Amino acid sequence: MKIGILGGGQLARMLALAGRPMGLDFLFLEPTDNASAGCLGQHLQGAYDDSDMLHQMAKQADVVTFEFENVPAASVECLAADAPTYPSAYALTVAQNRLKEKNLFRELGISTPQFVAVDSLDELESAISVTGLPAVLKTRAEGYDGKGQVVLRKTSDAADAWRYLQGAEAILEAFVPYDRELSIIAVRGREGEMAFYPVSENTHREGILHLSMSRLDDPMQKRAEKYIRQIAETLDFVGVITLELFQVGDELLANEIAPRVHNSGHWTIEGAETSQFENHLRAILGWPLGSTALLGFSAMVNFIGSLPEPTEVLAISGANFHSYAKEARPGRKIGHATIRASNEESLQAKLQQLLTLI
Amino acid sequence: MKIGILGGGQLARMLALAGRPMGLDFLFLEPTDNASAGCLGQHLQGAYDDSDMLHQMAKQADVVTFEFENVPAASVECLAADAPTYPSAYALTVAQNRLKEKNLFRELGISTPQFVAVDSLDELESAISVTGLPAVLKTRAEGYDGKGQVVLRKTSDAADAWRYLQGAEAILEAFVPYDRELSIIAVRGREGEMAFYPVSENTHREGILHLSMSRLDDPMQKRAEKYIRQIAETLDFVGVITLELFQVGDELLANEIAPRVHNSGHWTIEGAETSQFENHLRAILGWPLGSTALLGFSAMVNFIGSLPEPTEVLAISGANFHSYAKEARPGRKIGHATIRASNEESLQAKLQQLLTLI
Repeated sequence: MKIGILGGGQLARMLALAGRPMGLDFLFLEPTDNASAGCLGQHLQGAYDDSDMLHQMAKQADVVTFEFENVPAASVECLAADAPTYPSAYALTVAQNRLKEKNLFRELGISTPQFVAVDSLDELESAISVTGLPAVLKTRAEGYDGKGQVVLRKTSDAADAWRYLQGAEAILEAFVPYDRELSIIAVRGREGEMAFYPVSENTHREGILHLSMSRLDDPMQKRAEKYIRQIAETLDFVGVITLELFQVGDELLANEIAPRVHNSGHWTIEGAETSQFENHLRAILGWPLGSTALLGFSAMVNFIGSLPEPTEVLAISGANFHSYAKEARPGRKIGHATIRASNEESLQAKLQQLLTLI
Repeated sequence: MKIGILGGGQLARMLALAGRPMGLDFLFLEPTDNASAGCLGQHLQGAYDDSDMLHQMAKQADVVTFEFENVPAASVECLAADAPTYPSAYALTVAQNRLKEKNLFRELGISTPQFVAVDSLDELESAISVTGLPAVLKTRAEGYDGKGQVVLRKTSDAADAWRYLQGAEAILEAFVPYDRELSIIAVRGREGEMAFYPVSENTHREGILHLSMSRLDDPMQKRAEKYIRQIAETLDFVGVITLELFQVGDELLANEIAPRVHNSGHWTIEGAETSQFENHLRAILGWPLGSTALLGFSAMVNFIGSLPEPTEVLAISGANFHSYAKEARPGRKIGHATIRASNEESLQAKLQQLLTLI
């Protein structure tokens, strides 16, 4: 069986590392020449909308998927005409657009930070009266890791912020003074069956995920599951889907969805019975989903811009070292480490050791 | 870092699957054109004693190893002259020869089945009086999975048995009416540090490993550790080493060593804190060894000659499906499944389900 993936970055790499043991083959469509996933399958080098390449992929692959949401929905639609393709172009379209996803949350009765669509400076100025300040102006499409976002602290920031977005379709969101950032990862199979990972508690630095911890019996688990189930069912989603959340007091607000495996679930490789990567493959293949139960307590720390010495990481008992074989650049995710421990205290102690290395 | 491996079969494949997440690259020297490991690194196609290929490997690889003991010790010696190469040619030479390894056991005071070196039909006939009958005549070199072996049940079998071996240097071993077949896998680092996996209890079918179970707190653990420590230290071994054992009543007899990762340790991929494959890589790289502690209770079943449907295997909760991407042929190992469970009873129930599929 051959899996075609739009994208050849670290998420495609980890999908292939989960699939190779099961005898699956991989094919990546990726424009750059030194793809992180390239060593694990056939690399079709080309743009995500190159129709020849898409045709080749649909012809060769038994099932097609994508590793991230910044691929054209039209390409996914084109692939779906010739090969089983999951998630659907429709689900992708919603996830690509901050306004569509927020509207979906609202329709489903899922709380979100206050938001207003913004298409002009005038609209931005009046939107501020709805969201209050501070607020975050975001492009509706193509933003990730804090890119395409600007914070407004006072009304007079509006003009600069609007210029910064260069006329892109935007959304203004109330700035949420959250107590915790959480995410929940779920997987939904072709027949609609679902499984949910325990929520992750996340910490960002400069807009990029820094630390995720698996949370056993989190008080927000049930509500997070309910939300992501509603969303996945409405989208008739197949594969792994992630919902990012803010907790404010006892309130749980939906921030955004990612129609894919997620950085906050990398700890599932060692810390869950079945990793998010294997479960995504099982789902899109129509195979039985694997257990999402925890194996002990886990935390994951991203390596951003540079890698520590593997020997220093691996000297911590229970640590696993992951490198994405990517060139080091400031602000670029190039690896991560996971710590797995049998109890919370031991996890915290090992995590502190790990954090001294980065 | 690039690891060169002599051999490109499933053991090389699983080594690469353990090393790729850590950012390691791989290079395989393998004569066949559709190597099981080929999709996970660069494939140098050539004989194990092709001096050009060996030169290329030593030049490109940071560390060299081998996946099985049927590679020429001279090739390992040649590689070791130009690149760090583990285990050593000396350790390989001992492991390649049943007489040398049995003599080593004897020197170290490790019990073994009775054995006699045999170089002629006359010697075979007199050896029978030492071992008694039944006995097993084995070639000293190159045997695996029951190949190069013949059982003698009566004195008159000697002539046929000797003809079967076609004049190869041989060893006659007493046939052991064992209660259990066990193996212990250990890893030894460059500085001599060691870690030991819990023993596996193994069942063979027609000379090929069928089933391995991880054994927590086995009464034979301590003695098995003592034996393998003595052997590894005497050989100044670096990497993963396996000792196969027979238990007869309260006696523990050493059968043979494998200077490598071993089929009876495939359950360590999911069932131990660190797999035998990752620990072999850590050892030969001079990296810290990983914990060999169990994660629950595990069993592994080999797929020989054909694969079951992955969907049927994966429908068993806690099952993992492994395919080596090898062509199916009668008697050929082409995959395995592991079951991991939180207690012995659950393991047995799931294992029975799995066994109905093969």
